[in-house]
This record gives sequence, C-alpha cells and structure tokens, in this order.
Amino acid sequence: MRPSTSLLVTPIEMMQVFEGILLRNGFGADASTQLATVFTQNSVDGIYSHGINRFATFIEHKQNGYIMPDAVPKRVSQFNGVEQWDGHLGPGILNATMATTRCMELAASFGIGCVALSNTNHWLRGGTYGWQAAKKGFVFIGWTNTIANMPAWGALDAKLGNNPIVFAVPYKEEAIVLDMAVSQFSYGAMEMKLLQHEKLPVFGGFDATGALTQDPAAILQTRRTLPIGYWKGAGLSLLLDILAVILSGGKSTAEISKSTAEYGLSQVFIAIDIKKLHHYTTIQTLIENIITDYQQSVPFNDDATITYPGERVLQTRSRNLEVGIPVQQKVWERIQQL
Amino acid sequence: MRPSTSLLVTPIEMMQVFEGILLRNGFGADASTQLATVFTQNSVDGIYSHGINRFATFIEHKQNGYIMPDAVPKRVSQFNGVEQWDGHLGPGILNATMATTRCMELAASFGIGCVALSNTNHWLRGGTYGWQAAKKGFVFIGWTNTIANMPAWGALDAKLGNNPIVFAVPYKEEAIVLDMAVSQFSYGAMEMKLLQHEKLPVFGGFDATGALTQDPAAILQTRRTLPIGYWKGAGLSLLLDILAVILSGGKSTAEISKSTAEYGLSQVFIAIDIKKLHHYTTIQTLIENIITDYQQSVPFNDDATITYPGERVLQTRSRNLEVGIPVQQKVWERIQQL
Repeated sequence: MRPSTSLLVTPIEMMQVFEGILLRNGFGADASTQLATVFTQNSVDGIYSHGINRFATFIEHKQNGYIMPDAVPKRVSQFNGVEQWDGHLGPGILNATMATTRCMELAASFGIGCVALSNTNHWLRGGTYGWQAAKKGFVFIGWTNTIANMPAWGALDAKLGNNPIVFAVPYKEEAIVLDMAVSQFSYGAMEMKLLQHEKLPVFGGFDATGALTQDPAAILQTRRTLPIGYWKGAGLSLLLDILAVILSGGKSTAEISKSTAEYGLSQVFIAIDIKKLHHYTTIQTLIENIITDYQQSVPFNDDATITYPGERVLQTRSRNLEVGIPVQQKVWERIQQL
Repeated sequence: MRPSTSLLVTPIEMMQVFEGILLRNGFGADASTQLATVFTQNSVDGIYSHGINRFATFIEHKQNGYIMPDAVPKRVSQFNGVEQWDGHLGPGILNATMATTRCMELAASFGIGCVALSNTNHWLRGGTYGWQAAKKGFVFIGWTNTIANMPAWGALDAKLGNNPIVFAVPYKEEAIVLDMAVSQFSYGAMEMKLLQHEKLPVFGGFDATGALTQDPAAILQTRRTLPIGYWKGAGLSLLLDILAVILSGGKSTAEISKSTAEYGLSQVFIAIDIKKLHHYTTIQTLIENIITDYQQSVPFNDDATITYPGERVLQTRSRNLEVGIPVQQKVWERIQQL
C-alpha cells in the first residue's frame, strides 16, 4: 500500500543514496555496494519494512556498536555437508549472503549442505536468501531466531521470537518463495494498521481482558501477540530457536533478549542441489502441474485472488522498476540526514 | 481425553492382537512385529488417532490393494548426502522408518542427510520418526504430503493437503518433538468435538455464510478448513507439497487427490548428526537453558500450563504404561473382528 505523503524514488537513486551513507559510516566499498543492493532490492520487491523503512535503524545499529562493519565471518567447524560459522557481529545481510552461497557450494558437493551461523545480525528480509538460492537452481530452507516478541501458548510475557522461516524453490527463471514469521502479524504491521485506523483482518493477539482481538492498539498495549495457529506456531517458534542454537552454537532468543537491542542472532541455511536428482529434467513440469492445479481453485468471491508465495512480489517488482519505489517523505528525509 | 465406554488394554495385549491380525492379513513376521510396535507405541503415547483408532483403516487399505504388504523400498538415485527412494506402496510406517534410519546413516557420513521417498503410504504419526531420530542423537526434520483436505487462501474448494511437518531434537535421553499438521484442526478432531457437543477452542474454518466459525458441524459441512495462520499455513502447505514432490519425484497432493483413497504419498526426511559439531558436548546445556527460560513464562491464569512440544506425550506415555491404554469399546470390538 502506498503511503499518502510519498515520493517515487528510482532504484538507481536509492542505491546511490544508500551506498554513499554506508561509505560515510565506515563500511568498505564492496560491503557498501552489496548492502545497498539488498536494501534497494527488498524495496523494489515491496518489502519496505525490510528495505527502505529499516535502513536508518541499520545505520543506527552500526553507530551503536551492534553491527561491526569490518567483521569477517569465520568458519569454526566443518564436517562434509555441515559447517558452523561465526558471524562476528558483521552486517546480517553480508553474513547471510555468505552463508547462502556457502550452503549452495556444500550442496553442489554433497547433495545437501547446511551452514549454521552464530553471532550474526538481522538478515532483514529472509526471502532475499531464498531468492538468491532458488535463482541459482537450489532448493532452500533457512530460518533465524529473533529477540523475544511473542508469548508462549498460555503465557502473558514474551519468551519466544517470531523466528522467520523461508522455503524456496526455482520456478520459471524466478522462484516460489515463502518467507514467513511465526507470529500472525509483526509489530510493524500492527503499528501501520493503528496509524490507518484499521482493524487487523484476523485475530492478532489478546486484549487486556484476555480475549482475542483484531484491535491493533489493544495488542500493542498487552504485547500478547498471537502465534500462527495458536499453540502450533508457539511450538514451531521454540523448535526453530532450539535448532538455530544447537546447530550454530550461538545465542538463543532468551540470551538475545537480555539486551534491549536485537543483535547477535543464530541462523540456519540449508540448500539442496536438485541437479543431482534422477528426475531433474522433469522438475519444472512437476512444479508447473502443482501451480496449475492450485490456480484452478474456486475463488471464495469476486475479490478473492489466489496467488502462490512470491507471486505478488513479482508484480510489485515489475511496477516499482517501471514507476519507481514509493517512499514515505519523512523516511526519505531522515535517510538523507544520516 | 478418555472416551466414556472404554477399556484399558495393556501394551503387550494390544501388540499381540495387532500382530496376529497383521500376520493373518499377509504381512510378514518382521513387518508385523514392526507395524504392531509402532501402532502400539503411538497409542501408548496418547496419539490414538494415529494408533489404535486407525488400525482397522490400515488393514482395510491393505485389503483394498492400496498398501502392498511385501513391497520392498528401492533406492532410485544417490548423490552423497541425498538419496531418492521409491516406496512401492509399502506400509507407510515401514517405509518411513527405513527412510529415517537411512537419513541418519547419511548424516553420520556427510553431516546432514536427506532421503526423499515417493510412492509411500500414510506414515500414521509423523512424530514417530522424530522420536526415532532424536533418541539416537540426531536432529530431524521431515514432512509428508496428503490428499487435498484444505482450501487455498481465498478459495472454496480443497486443493491443499494438511501436510504434517516434524521437527525433533534429542533432550535428556528423550526428545523435544513438534509434530504439526498445517491445518488448525484435523477432520478427526472436528468430528470428535461434534460428538461431544463442544465448540472448537478457536476458529477452525468457515461456515456456509463465509464467516469464520468455531462450530465443527458448520465446517464439516462446508469443508472449508482453516490453515494455521490463515494465508501463512496455506503457503506453507503448498511449499511442503512442492518440496516433497520435486525431491522425491513422487505424486503431488493434486495427483493423490485424483483417487478417493489416500495412497502413494511423497515424503522428505532430513537428519543432522550433531555429534559432528564443534560444541557437541554443550548442546544439552544449551537446550536446557532454553527450556528453563521458556518454563519461567508467566501463565495467563491458574489453568494455563506451559509445556514444550512432546512434554505431554511423556506424561501420557507414563500413565498408559502404568494403567493401560484407553480404547473405545466399539473400536476394540471392530479390531477383534478383523
């Protein structure tokens, strides 16, 4: 949705502005290009919360010492298809891109590869790494833990993260990418609805009386956000945290949450090289048959559109590349002053 | 919950009854023992819907030719840590147990192992394989597709499966196991609530007017069941089906659904050998720290109990081993007549 007071910024301009700020803030030339590219791509794809709208916070995290601009991730163990890396608090985007590239290399050698990454930072949009891997022909599964922002099922206080998980497969030179936090709504999404004086489309958490509610203000007050599928998403969050921690040896949601700032995360990246499968040449047909059947679903009403994960991203990408990226005026002004 | 007219059956008696019926129905001696063991264990663990309550259907599926009692799964491709196997429509429990064992062997050799299985059958309780792997010290991730039983988000007709996914980790000689279908409630659970004249605890689907409802009768009529997290669970279901199909080369939910009986499924089994990680000796402490923090959650009220996935299974297991497995009289009578 395009904000009311907004500009349209071309990808090239956004990229240049980001790159200049990154260079002035102590990031190296290569790192600045890579970071500016991903922040711009996420914005082009319409994931503004993990693109343009998060850029200023990223720079602040660097200025506050949570992100080390010169950090070089280091491998701490390797055993055939599994490697553990320490991200040394480098930029999350760079560490996650390295881990994605590396797990694809491992998959090319061993069929399946896993990189577990400790001491990293927010990877911004998880889908970035799904698209990276799928566009190179790999199946990808990856997830991250986060700071505590969601209560356990039956609890009042937040002990769980919304731990996004990504599944991606190559499809028609592009990809099908599911990038899903395990909370029903992010705090950002609820704050946006509040600003727009709108209710949430479905229950997003509990109000002060303990009732489920679609009122974002009530949830922002109790901070009792809802896991997807209630007890199921809470269990999924716990398992994703445990897996990220035991595979990487890094910090848990509980440990991350000892600080008020979210940094030092644990992540897992798994790639499978489908070129090694015996029926490789038929895989695109197999996917197309599934998507064709899916798209033959009978819509609930005239307004219902049935899309696969990542499909609307392609539409937004195409529009933003053509007419420019919508940016809130105050966001753009704040960035210019960084 | 214990049904009103029920017996208590000891695990040994249940096992012997199952084994006798399996032998009489053309299953070999080893297969009968293994199948009877898993059906009994699932019942001991309190997963009656995938234990005692499903046994008669399993035998009928064999009698109807959907399950081949003598089938031997065959490897159709291998590349280091990834293998593809054809289950040749053998019993799902045997095929899934083979695949779990094999992906652990691959993980022991390559750090991470993946077995993709085509032409298999219902694995009953997915958690079975999570427990098998975790008790041997492996991390486990596995999932299956199913017949279509859930509409796409925005759709009226069921094109998606509820595709259960399992995550398991070793914990204190036992395991933490999340075994989660991606629909909010199974048809079995909704039918049970209807029989008990109870509402569902949260929305489980749509009624005939298109409104979300907790009324199981209304959902059983429309068959518009709800994915966990609404659009999120629908997307997850689609990706799990695509992944199972492209990794195994087997049938999709769409293809399975061309028959009215659910058979010939596609499944994925991934194990990671945590003994190969540099911090292996600290892993149990890392998990314990997470669980301890989780259990310090503030309960919502005096009735709220905060448990981790698999924790209540241990309590039920202990009780059923002590006093016997509760079995509905009519279910037990039907089984005796098989």
